[in-house]
Formats: sequence, structure tokens, C-alpha cells
Amino acid sequence: MAAPVEFYFDFSSPYGYLASEQIDQLCAQHGRQTDWRPIMLGVVFKQTGQQPLVEVPLKGDYSKRDILRTARLWGGPFVVPDAFPFPSISACRAAYWAKDRHPEQAKPLMQALLRRAWNRNQDIAKPDSVVAVAGEVGLDRGETAKALQDPAVKDRLRQELEASLAAGVFGSPYIVVDGEPFWGNDRLDMVDKWLARGGW
Amino acid sequence: MAAPVEFYFDFSSPYGYLASEQIDQLCAQHGRQTDWRPIMLGVVFKQTGQQPLVEVPLKGDYSKRDILRTARLWGGPFVVPDAFPFPSISACRAAYWAKDRHPEQAKPLMQALLRRAWNRNQDIAKPDSVVAVAGEVGLDRGETAKALQDPAVKDRLRQELEASLAAGVFGSPYIVVDGEPFWGNDRLDMVDKWLARGGW
Repeated sequence: MAAPVEFYFDFSSPYGYLASEQIDQLCAQHGRQTDWRPIMLGVVFKQTGQQPLVEVPLKGDYSKRDILRTARLWGGPFVVPDAFPFPSISACRAAYWAKDRHPEQAKPLMQALLRRAWNRNQDIAKPDSVVAVAGEVGLDRGETAKALQDPAVKDRLRQELEASLAAGVFGSPYIVVDGEPFWGNDRLDMVDKWLARGGW
Repeated sequence: MAAPVEFYFDFSSPYGYLASEQIDQLCAQHGRQTDWRPIMLGVVFKQTGQQPLVEVPLKGDYSKRDILRTARLWGGPFVVPDAFPFPSISACRAAYWAKDRHPEQAKPLMQALLRRAWNRNQDIAKPDSVVAVAGEVGLDRGETAKALQDPAVKDRLRQELEASLAAGVFGSPYIVVDGEPFWGNDRLDMVDKWLARGGW
């Protein structure tokens, strides 16, 4: 069986959210699973010397317009959270902890976190918010709260972020199909073609 | 009659070249003309604090791969010039001079310059090269050579670049349909939909 398609995203990235709502179905049409791997663009930008998109002169104004337009074209529920951009370190820690310890709940947790922010304009930055969402998807709240403070979980995230940088991941979403990288929600069409043809 | 679709591009931009080969046909399918307006990303980057794409860590390596992949998917002739990225100030001056004085030859001149660089790996940075291409599309070589040194032509380009920045143009290609901006060769699909639907 082919390796899963790697889906890297930042919880605080609108394009990452929009891709998260489409990537699984897209890959399933080609008989492929996905592996969701949250990253933190703040860490990436320190490495690449880039700024957050919405803060770049001219490009920032354009991107605010493009985000809303892209969401309307997709057609699903979408709101830019009042708190955007927001820190996602707790969400990321919870995600990797769940992937390791409760893999069945990991994707539901990530999806519920994304939707809480991008559908309902609610906080997912605070540890308490992340714990509440974990509870909603069937994880133990106390165990989740403890995990968020666990040095081993913190290390796990650090290693994951280092590994993603080493793998060249510099944006959100960033999708790797059999070693071939695709950056951006606007590359989903190309991902679809690559999966269909196995390259060109 | 609807205003032409504004097509901003940098002669030294691979994605700009790729879009230039597709934009006229795409717009014609919706009964629309195009207005080609070369810009210089070096001037834009001074304003936005960005670097040339291929020089950004991680993103640069990705983009080199994506440029070739995008060109293969398009399917037409394409080569990254040995001199890339190259200065395009003479090409830009010639383009705006032609738009003003010899509008019938302006688009053929821009297209011939782009193809000389991106199909044939030949120089379009030197004034002599630009003059040679001008001759190929029926412009007078002596008149073109003189225009490239004309302070009024230099001013014209400066004003054009200032106006494009004031209009928010920060990348190549950058396409404006009835006031709606689209950045990137990967937005041609969206331009197509916007032209078909008049927005969404």
C-alpha cells in the first residue's frame, strides 16, 4: 500500500484550514490516505526570514481579499477568527500527543480544532480551549491537560518542527505526494493531477 | 465594451512568462481584450521588503522545482535562461515606448522578448538585444535605440512603476479583472471563473 500523502498545515493558517476540508476526499478519490502534520509558521519564518503573509505590504491586503474569495469559491462554512493570527503551540502539542497515544482520535481532534477556529470564531490558542475540544472528540480532559505540560510532549513537537524544516516545509498547506512537494491551497488541482498520473 | 483585463508581468519572471502564453486566449474565450503592462519586481521588493523568490530559503528550492513542473504541465516550449534573474529595464522602456508610439507592435514586441528569453535562452537584458528584437517585429532599430536613451521614455517607465505600486501590484503575473486582482500563474483558473461568472 502506498505511503500516506503528507499534509502539513498551521492551525492559524486560513489556506491550511481550507485545504484541510478538501485534502482527505481528494486523496481518497485516488485510494490514498493522508497523514496530518501540524506545523508552526512562526518557527518557519525565523528560518526563512519571511513575515506573516497578512503583514507584508501590498501582499497582505491582497491576501485578506483572496482568503475570503477562495473560501466563497469553496463554498463551505468559513470565518476569519477575530484573534487571527493566533498561537497554536497547544493545539500542535495536543495533536502530536494524540497521534502517538490515541491515533484514532488524532485527526478528529485536529479537525475539531480547525473548525472551532475557522467555522465558529472561537479560541483554540488557550490550553483550556484545546482541552475542551479534546473532550468533545472523546479524549480524556485531565489526561490531555497533563499532556500539554509534559516535557516529553513539548520535545516531540520541537523535533517534529525541526524535521519539517529539514524536509523543506516552509508554508501552509504543504502537501507531499510520494516525495513531490506542493505548497498552497491553490495547488490542490495539481495534487489531484499528480495523484492521477503519478507525475509528469 | 468592457475594459481590457490588465496583465502585469516582469520579463524576468518565469510565472509571468507562463501566464503570458495563456492569458490572451483565456480572456478571448470570454470576449475580453488584455492590456500587457510590464513591471520590475526589484522595484516592488524594495517597497514590500521581500526577496526574489528563488533566493528565499526553502521556498527558493521549492520554486525552482515548481517552475519546471508548472511549465511541463502547460506543455509549451520553456527554458530557464542561464542569466535568470536578469535586469529588464530596457525591455520595459521599449515596451511602454511601443505602447505609446507604435501600439500595434507593442504586444508582439513584448511577446518576442519573452520568448527570446524563455524559449531560446537568449539575452534580453542588453539594450542591443532589445533593439534587435524590436527590429524583428517591424519596429525601426534606430528609433528604438534612441527611445531607450530618451529621458521622457525613462520617466514614462518610472511613472508606470509608481502607478502599479499605488494600484497594489506586488507580483508577477498580477491580473486585474474589472478591479478584482489575481496574483500568480496558479490563479488563471480563478481568473477564468471570475470572467465567466462576473465574481462570486
